[in-house]
Amino acid sequence: MINNKDIDFISNKLEFWNSLTITEKKQIISKSQLISYTKGKSVYDGLDDCRGLIIVKNGQLRTYILSDNGKEVTLYRLFHDEICIMSASCALNNMNFDLYIEAEKDSEIILIPTDIYSEISKNNIEVQKFTNKVTLTRFSDVMWIMEQILFMSFDKRLAMFLLDQSSIEKSDTIYMTHEDIAKHMGSAREVVSRMLKYFQNEGYVKTERGSIILKNKKKLQSITF
Amino acid sequence: MINNKDIDFISNKLEFWNSLTITEKKQIISKSQLISYTKGKSVYDGLDDCRGLIIVKNGQLRTYILSDNGKEVTLYRLFHDEICIMSASCALNNMNFDLYIEAEKDSEIILIPTDIYSEISKNNIEVQKFTNKVTLTRFSDVMWIMEQILFMSFDKRLAMFLLDQSSIEKSDTIYMTHEDIAKHMGSAREVVSRMLKYFQNEGYVKTERGSIILKNKKKLQSITF
Repeated sequence: MINNKDIDFISNKLEFWNSLTITEKKQIISKSQLISYTKGKSVYDGLDDCRGLIIVKNGQLRTYILSDNGKEVTLYRLFHDEICIMSASCALNNMNFDLYIEAEKDSEIILIPTDIYSEISKNNIEVQKFTNKVTLTRFSDVMWIMEQILFMSFDKRLAMFLLDQSSIEKSDTIYMTHEDIAKHMGSAREVVSRMLKYFQNEGYVKTERGSIILKNKKKLQSITF
Repeated sequence: MINNKDIDFISNKLEFWNSLTITEKKQIISKSQLISYTKGKSVYDGLDDCRGLIIVKNGQLRTYILSDNGKEVTLYRLFHDEICIMSASCALNNMNFDLYIEAEKDSEIILIPTDIYSEISKNNIEVQKFTNKVTLTRFSDVMWIMEQILFMSFDKRLAMFLLDQSSIEKSDTIYMTHEDIAKHMGSAREVVSRMLKYFQNEGYVKTERGSIILKNKKKLQSITF
């Protein structure tokens, strides 16, 4: 059960809200949950963990894939207001890949459990259109990161990553280890360290223990073109 | 306009067929086209080329992405009976990535133009469900190839590629240059050549000008585990 403010919030986010019957609306309201996660906690743990539609109330979630030997690659992030439908995998026909979501900052989400989402999907075309749209948004996110990984040289990718991170953190100092960055980028720590050393020699960044300071964002930006 | 045999074929493939009105069925039949492509011809040329839903009647299509400097990576193939919806991109909300399709063998497709597909999608939930399902099938294909590229060592990937290709061609001889293989795998020719030389030294394959003969499939198979 969620409160009135949260009902306002989700009814705004769920474009199909007005097409629901009063009973359906009541069902969603009574079954939805507000859940808090502290930074680093797992929010969604692969196909078997089919919990439902997630709407990010605040904080920041990271969606990633995971190899057998523990290598991670970040696919996309979810910020305030954004919706994840992949976490309702079992409500989606023919989805057969695993992905994982963790809280990258302390976060609050509203969860609409899979059973209720499946139920309202069955006979409501607006819900189907919504599912389609959100799925394609994520599909596009994945295609973007895939093209980046396959086609973009590593200096370009690292420069973009640092600039993105700096704008997310609203700070020129990025508190991440080389290992963290390698994880996000699906690369090896050595490769990240080598490129950061090059960036430092060029005066673009200054690396310190556990952090990287962006010294010349203009130059970093120029690499990304 | 398509003939009766093709109408039978598509009405079987389009799971929503029975939910259509007689007028809608007639519209689809009258607007659908049977198109032939010779091997190597372009079937779909990115977002601007929003031609419609493709059903493969026979032959083989290859879907790939393309970098600014002409590098290609194969995402998935479409065989007899299979459906591509990404080629109806403008009928899909929030799809914003480019992909390309070419005929990998002489092929025949049935094309349901975007305008008619969009039209029947608007008010028919079964069509929306179908769109959703086909989209997620392709999304899953892309995730699979992405995990392969990111997580699998190159010897494993190359062995799998050769075995797949051999089973597609129904032959132990694969008529492809190292350059062709590199293109398919999103790799460089040098990397492919180096690994094939290793495979040859191990007695798994024999490379000849323009072709590769699989000499020990069992061994190749054992690499893929």
